[in-house]
Amino acid sequence: MDTVALPPDAFARECASRVVLDRIGDRWTVLVVVALADGRLRFSQLRQKIEGVTPKVLTQTLRALERDGLVTRTVYAEVPPRVEYELTELGRDLLGPIDAVRLWAEQHAARIVRHREAYDGA
Amino acid sequence: MDTVALPPDAFARECASRVVLDRIGDRWTVLVVVALADGRLRFSQLRQKIEGVTPKVLTQTLRALERDGLVTRTVYAEVPPRVEYELTELGRDLLGPIDAVRLWAEQHAARIVRHREAYDGA
Repeated sequence: MDTVALPPDAFARECASRVVLDRIGDRWTVLVVVALADGRLRFSQLRQKIEGVTPKVLTQTLRALERDGLVTRTVYAEVPPRVEYELTELGRDLLGPIDAVRLWAEQHAARIVRHREAYDGA
Repeated sequence: MDTVALPPDAFARECASRVVLDRIGDRWTVLVVVALADGRLRFSQLRQKIEGVTPKVLTQTLRALERDGLVTRTVYAEVPPRVEYELTELGRDLLGPIDAVRLWAEQHAARIVRHREAYDGA
């Protein structure tokens, strides 16, 4: 396959930005990134802030964010060990666009739900 | 369940904005909305623009966008019938935040992929 450097284009089948789009568009990813906007949090604090997230899904989301370089995980040698999560510089950079999407969802949710109900009832 | 009007909050379990977040964060949704930025397109034109999308997935994505009030579908009485898709005012409003996310994905995809490779190889 041709690997000549093309300008990134999410419309192109092989473009890595598609995979990234999948990751950053994920509901839990958005909520975790926004939850960490004000600083580092422990796992339990994240769980509390993001209502309804299961420990399994939160662990998976955090691991994927760590793998992508968007979140760092710091373990403090205490008993029991304290683990904190924090946005990296790159994660902080993502916060702008992602928070705009969250705000849009909050602002327009009612209208979209009404439209769905009308569509389904028609 | 309490249905008193609370300010919308995507961190709250029952908030409709979560469902909306899921929809607008979807990879294909992002690509379809951005593809329609410059005006109405036919199904075949959308398929051509969004490489790798199957007819089934494109149909599902368009139907969901129509249901949410983000896209309109217009059928012209021709032989064969011509069907065109266009962003509604609400869909056009979503374009801003969603296109910022797509641009971010394109701009940072290479860095994220490098981070993944380092993480997996470590």
